[in-house]
Amino acid sequence: MKIALAQLNYHIGNFKSNTAKIISAIEKFKSQKADLVVFSELAICGYPPKDLLERKDFIEQTQIALEKIAEKCVDIAIVVGGPSINPNPKGKNLYNSAYFMSNGEIASVHNKTLLPNYDIFDEYRYFEPNTEFSLINFKGKKIALTICEDLWEKQPVDNNFAKSELYTISPMEELSKLNPDFVINIAASPFSYNQQDYRTNILKSTCKHYHLPIFYVNQIGAHAELIFDGDSMVLNSKGEIACRLDYFKEDFQIIDLHNIEDQKYESKNVDYIEKIHDALVLGLKDYFVKTGFTQAILGLSGGIDSAVTLVLAVRALGKENVRVLLLPSEFSSDHSIKDAVELAENLGIQYEIVPIQNIFQEMQNSLSPIFKDLPFNVAEENIQARIRGTLLMGLSNKFGHILLNTSNKSEAAVGYGTLYGDMNGGLSVLGDVYKSDVFKMAWFMNKEVEIIPVNTIVKPPSAELRPDQKDSDSLPDYDILDAILFRYIEKNMSSDEIIADGFAKETVLKTISMVNRNEYKRFQTPPILRVSSKAFGFGRKIPLVAKH
Amino acid sequence: MKIALAQLNYHIGNFKSNTAKIISAIEKFKSQKADLVVFSELAICGYPPKDLLERKDFIEQTQIALEKIAEKCVDIAIVVGGPSINPNPKGKNLYNSAYFMSNGEIASVHNKTLLPNYDIFDEYRYFEPNTEFSLINFKGKKIALTICEDLWEKQPVDNNFAKSELYTISPMEELSKLNPDFVINIAASPFSYNQQDYRTNILKSTCKHYHLPIFYVNQIGAHAELIFDGDSMVLNSKGEIACRLDYFKEDFQIIDLHNIEDQKYESKNVDYIEKIHDALVLGLKDYFVKTGFTQAILGLSGGIDSAVTLVLAVRALGKENVRVLLLPSEFSSDHSIKDAVELAENLGIQYEIVPIQNIFQEMQNSLSPIFKDLPFNVAEENIQARIRGTLLMGLSNKFGHILLNTSNKSEAAVGYGTLYGDMNGGLSVLGDVYKSDVFKMAWFMNKEVEIIPVNTIVKPPSAELRPDQKDSDSLPDYDILDAILFRYIEKNMSSDEIIADGFAKETVLKTISMVNRNEYKRFQTPPILRVSSKAFGFGRKIPLVAKH
Repeated sequence: MKIALAQLNYHIGNFKSNTAKIISAIEKFKSQKADLVVFSELAICGYPPKDLLERKDFIEQTQIALEKIAEKCVDIAIVVGGPSINPNPKGKNLYNSAYFMSNGEIASVHNKTLLPNYDIFDEYRYFEPNTEFSLINFKGKKIALTICEDLWEKQPVDNNFAKSELYTISPMEELSKLNPDFVINIAASPFSYNQQDYRTNILKSTCKHYHLPIFYVNQIGAHAELIFDGDSMVLNSKGEIACRLDYFKEDFQIIDLHNIEDQKYESKNVDYIEKIHDALVLGLKDYFVKTGFTQAILGLSGGIDSAVTLVLAVRALGKENVRVLLLPSEFSSDHSIKDAVELAENLGIQYEIVPIQNIFQEMQNSLSPIFKDLPFNVAEENIQARIRGTLLMGLSNKFGHILLNTSNKSEAAVGYGTLYGDMNGGLSVLGDVYKSDVFKMAWFMNKEVEIIPVNTIVKPPSAELRPDQKDSDSLPDYDILDAILFRYIEKNMSSDEIIADGFAKETVLKTISMVNRNEYKRFQTPPILRVSSKAFGFGRKIPLVAKH
Repeated sequence: MKIALAQLNYHIGNFKSNTAKIISAIEKFKSQKADLVVFSELAICGYPPKDLLERKDFIEQTQIALEKIAEKCVDIAIVVGGPSINPNPKGKNLYNSAYFMSNGEIASVHNKTLLPNYDIFDEYRYFEPNTEFSLINFKGKKIALTICEDLWEKQPVDNNFAKSELYTISPMEELSKLNPDFVINIAASPFSYNQQDYRTNILKSTCKHYHLPIFYVNQIGAHAELIFDGDSMVLNSKGEIACRLDYFKEDFQIIDLHNIEDQKYESKNVDYIEKIHDALVLGLKDYFVKTGFTQAILGLSGGIDSAVTLVLAVRALGKENVRVLLLPSEFSSDHSIKDAVELAENLGIQYEIVPIQNIFQEMQNSLSPIFKDLPFNVAEENIQARIRGTLLMGLSNKFGHILLNTSNKSEAAVGYGTLYGDMNGGLSVLGDVYKSDVFKMAWFMNKEVEIIPVNTIVKPPSAELRPDQKDSDSLPDYDILDAILFRYIEKNMSSDEIIADGFAKETVLKTISMVNRNEYKRFQTPPILRVSSKAFGFGRKIPLVAKH
């Protein structure tokens, strides 16, 4: 039996494009004599469709698309994900389903049992969990069809106190009683650099535990915050990877079931910074493609965050589609402008310089009857950042560019940024990357050629909003800060636990207090490309008015 | 048996204050010889605690608070809501529980069965559903203890296609088999003007169906977006309301179980605009109280939205705590400034006038090398709004005021507002109130005395960002617009269904397209005080990059 894996990039709600992609893959593999083609979870409508699932017209369109695809399944069978309607008037109206199509029709529908409801997942909002188990009989083989989380009997260990150690039901336990020959898992499993190995290990240990091969198909592509890496694979019953598809790219493979026990794929080690880099390039690109925009703008300060964001943007969109403004103030150092110009020239992109002193002066004049002789403080610092934000949005509105936000995760965490100023943008590119990883990424980008001026990387970080300002005036060193933040945000550790890990009490308490106090700022930030197991955004829900 | 209802305002994570309030109510009713005091759902930690439930230290604090309270339950019993730990290693770690405390200890724990997971609710994220049922035996009576949604066997009909008609299990069905004498329901049920009657009807029909009285205790108070109205009540077995607590205020009542069958409360009819008004005043007030701020600032344009917002702010915070800026441009009409000044003087609040022409001119000068001779358009309109936003935030930063956002729901829906301009603010006061209801609220505010200048209410709405601009240049009349929006947003109707309701096809399609196209703007708006069954915010999750 020849089974094909189709790892595709879908667009939520774009039934025409998704259907065409699926049908084109069916035709392709029909000509290659495949018996079965496997597509990913909710491929029909794109994942995650969120509250579009609550619209009757949206569900009707999924049903029409499914019928169109079923018609093409002659002399070939497929498995494809889509919502299906629960015929029982009790329980949620929908299942998250895998459709098995054969002989020109939908032959059977298999529903998802384990509905993830943590971090970015909220599948109980839409779906009824499955409670019935059956196999597919196809060409003499019995196939256990599962959907993503169905294999994750144990949830990842992440110090989330509300989460279970184990689900109350194990679909693999139930299905294995029926003696399947192999398992198919269709998934929509988002990338996070610190959980990717965990996912591979889940697949390996399931194979070994049940002595069954698994055909695992994930989607690729980004939907605003979420980036899907693909990394579809086939594992044999020993838990060895027999074949593996590409990261972050559409990819296909056809593999013979009879050969997989002897086949062994040699995985190469890729550094996590390179993976984050590739994830962000895809995230950026898809945000533009899927919203129908082509051109980006950003403010280039001479600092490292805007430099790294710019390089990513150029790689995602092409240098002809990226434009920058340099917006120096009276507090900008000469080297900042020089470094920014050098970077723009290295990349060959359009840049313009718009000094902000006169506007800043006029703002101060207008406010002086109210501010009187109160000393220069954060109010004036923020006004400068907001003037820059306004100028950048002016170009965005005039020319139809999307403004890219350049804040990193460390800043976003402690609120070291100006709301309606440098926090502006249609998309936050680095908002899930800690500053210490931004440094690593800059060096990674410079591996072959010096693209980012070394001075940008090695000089002490500064917002340059008052004379001789340094980030280190108000923040701990980034190595310390990021280590504390990772423990508090990704690991959900308490202050006591972090202090017990060897950090100074005062620094820990100050850091946590800054994180909690700035929840209101993050409430209004642009969507953040998610690359970690816990990004700011809809996967982290902290009450705004809580006492911490 | 004398049962007391304690309708209190809790603060999320403020264990000290919540515990003190609960203990003080226990003492109060002990002196009044009550047998049992009932508090609301998750009273111990405040509702909704969201991801704080994932923190081990947060759960530890709830357990300490519960023990402290149990010690006080001597010669009196109580029912109080809090999370409890699931001893089974399978399933979520927590239950959403009602603690029955008596004789100085926790006598029994009863868990929530129906976990709402729609709109603003996502309780499956944190809690395991209950599957076991038992009654409390107390002083010769058998009590069925339920938590909020447990009574909502049928979910409200709201055209949400993903939602169930019926839950798969009915806790009331199970509990009624055990022959209880009455039902207690502890709730955290947020206010929405168009579902409040539905809630009362659920209570009435449950009483009638099972021939049982219900003691229903809801919390009051606001937690950022969510406003809880209280409206706790006792219903007898005929489904008649025997007593009813106040709206939007802390309130207490003690009632004798033996008298309720003959007692009948005369409910008075309150107009929905008055309810929305009271809800918003509470929402505003609690946002300040619970974040520790006292002073608000807003931009007063002479238009109706900022006028209504200002009156609400003065009623919530006191006139000494509210300050306004008038920020006229070259396009502001004389009457706008006059109307704004008149309102400020009617209310006796501090106002200052800061013209923005010079700053606007300087911005245009700075951008002219890039904009060249491109015509004045939305870019220049938005720059004016952003200058205003920057000046207002300047005062916010300098003096520690919270900026109030004045956008209404109609504008938020169609994107008629400037991101980082008039969409700025710590809290959106009217973001869930359609423009046609803003007009009604202005008349309601003027019922006794003309507070808002009539000219502000009757003149054609205008953003005044270019010469002779009117809202009606780019939008349908608000009566039509709001009727379409209500059907699309609250009712989840498709364009075909709305057109079939008698609206012009072109207007419907244009409106829906504006709503969908502006998802990205709403992504970055401040928290919106929720007063309807479907507010923009975390109860409405639309993918940003979907094709509609």
